[in-house]
Amino acid sequence: MKLATIRTAEGTRAVRIDDEHAVELGALDVGAFLARVDWRAEASAASGRTRPLGGLDYATLVPRPEKVLCVGLNYRNHIAEMGRELPEYPTLFAKFARSLIGAYDPVTLPAGSRMVDWEAELGVVIGAPVRHATPERARAAIAGYTVVNDVTARDFQNRTPQWLQGKMFEAATPVGPWLVVSEDSDPAPVGEISCTLDGEEMQKSDVSHLVFDPVALVQYISSIITLVPGDLIATGTPGGVGAARQPQRWLGPGSELVTRIEGIGECRNVCRAEGSFRS
Amino acid sequence: MKLATIRTAEGTRAVRIDDEHAVELGALDVGAFLARVDWRAEASAASGRTRPLGGLDYATLVPRPEKVLCVGLNYRNHIAEMGRELPEYPTLFAKFARSLIGAYDPVTLPAGSRMVDWEAELGVVIGAPVRHATPERARAAIAGYTVVNDVTARDFQNRTPQWLQGKMFEAATPVGPWLVVSEDSDPAPVGEISCTLDGEEMQKSDVSHLVFDPVALVQYISSIITLVPGDLIATGTPGGVGAARQPQRWLGPGSELVTRIEGIGECRNVCRAEGSFRS
Repeated sequence: MKLATIRTAEGTRAVRIDDEHAVELGALDVGAFLARVDWRAEASAASGRTRPLGGLDYATLVPRPEKVLCVGLNYRNHIAEMGRELPEYPTLFAKFARSLIGAYDPVTLPAGSRMVDWEAELGVVIGAPVRHATPERARAAIAGYTVVNDVTARDFQNRTPQWLQGKMFEAATPVGPWLVVSEDSDPAPVGEISCTLDGEEMQKSDVSHLVFDPVALVQYISSIITLVPGDLIATGTPGGVGAARQPQRWLGPGSELVTRIEGIGECRNVCRAEGSFRS
Repeated sequence: MKLATIRTAEGTRAVRIDDEHAVELGALDVGAFLARVDWRAEASAASGRTRPLGGLDYATLVPRPEKVLCVGLNYRNHIAEMGRELPEYPTLFAKFARSLIGAYDPVTLPAGSRMVDWEAELGVVIGAPVRHATPERARAAIAGYTVVNDVTARDFQNRTPQWLQGKMFEAATPVGPWLVVSEDSDPAPVGEISCTLDGEEMQKSDVSHLVFDPVALVQYISSIITLVPGDLIATGTPGGVGAARQPQRWLGPGSELVTRIEGIGECRNVCRAEGSFRS
């Protein structure tokens, strides 16, 4: 089952994406929908207004998550290319809701950066409140998975010891197009994750190669703070980022990023210079 | 003029704090109130229900800010005690709304940490949307100032290269008791900032010693992302934290922190072990 947030003339709507059409779920977005206790059963049973798939305008999956947590250094080959050791604990940083865009929206290249890079990531979306989770409760708190590109301004990231300022640029992080709902009994996701730049493969790995898998991340984060429905965890990126290439590669106006996870979905985003299309 | 968010039997309310009593402003909290275009004029003119000052129960100043941005390494003496160089750019990291507590609420000591430390800070609250601000527009976007203690689990902070996980513990960051409203024409704040632990002075400096002052921070952050009403910036802490003392000092159950900024206000918080008073 796939759920999405779409933009309509009346505002955003949460929908179930079926083979033939999308079915409205009676909520403004996927975040609000996941806050319902029986959302899985409600999503399966929904029979609201339908819309043809062809005309859908996908908003970012959860427009206003309470928290966006990102994980750094979580694939062995990316850890190696950045010259670091395998970690004992997940490295966590934040992003803000205002940084997020839809699966096919333009990526805003920040005016002040000349080193904008890609980071294809598996996104985990929370579907139930959870604190101090056991592995079982952590698994049950996962609503499902989506595709994220943690687009990063490396020059800003490296200005100070903390990465946040290179990670929180406005309207630059694609998330979507949909949530692939998981069940309690599902194992950790397996499947190829890739990122292409103008058709050239830059990143290719498998989401099963995460050092800290989704259940481990939910368990760890919930030991610090309560995770709530709609919270998004970007689980880290594999090797192949632009900063680690010889020579280095960066995004520019017109660059097209395709971020894909097998069995989950694909984001396709063209980069535009800030100011060229929105104020 | 001072504004606060108080807890009442009917939920939170934004109020103006006068000498004799508090006056309701007709908004659920200070964050919602600051989203009104003419909030300064409305706050001055408000003549709603009044409540005696003595019985007020102060909630955290802005319960659900869109963003909480914290600044590291922003006082010369704290930079020196942490063994770092004077920075060219502000070091930014995040916190989540769920980490914030009221000015007199208990600080939750995280179950997993044995090194919980204090960080008295000047808080800047945003009162108007601002992006790519000039110094003048940055100044005009500041609603005013408050008191923050960026209570930090040093062991978690130092587990990985990113500090977030030591900074985002649930219900551990006092903010308040009120917003001291500033005007466009006001210069940067001046006044003693201090933190005492069980009556013993641990930190003492002056908020005018910030390396990056409030206007510079708003200007810099707004070059990355739009700041909106209710956003909170914790501007960094002066020297005297527990981690830098010989011998090191940490908070324990029953520890009382008093965080004070001259001309702004005071937070007074007793620490309690997680699980001892809430689940």
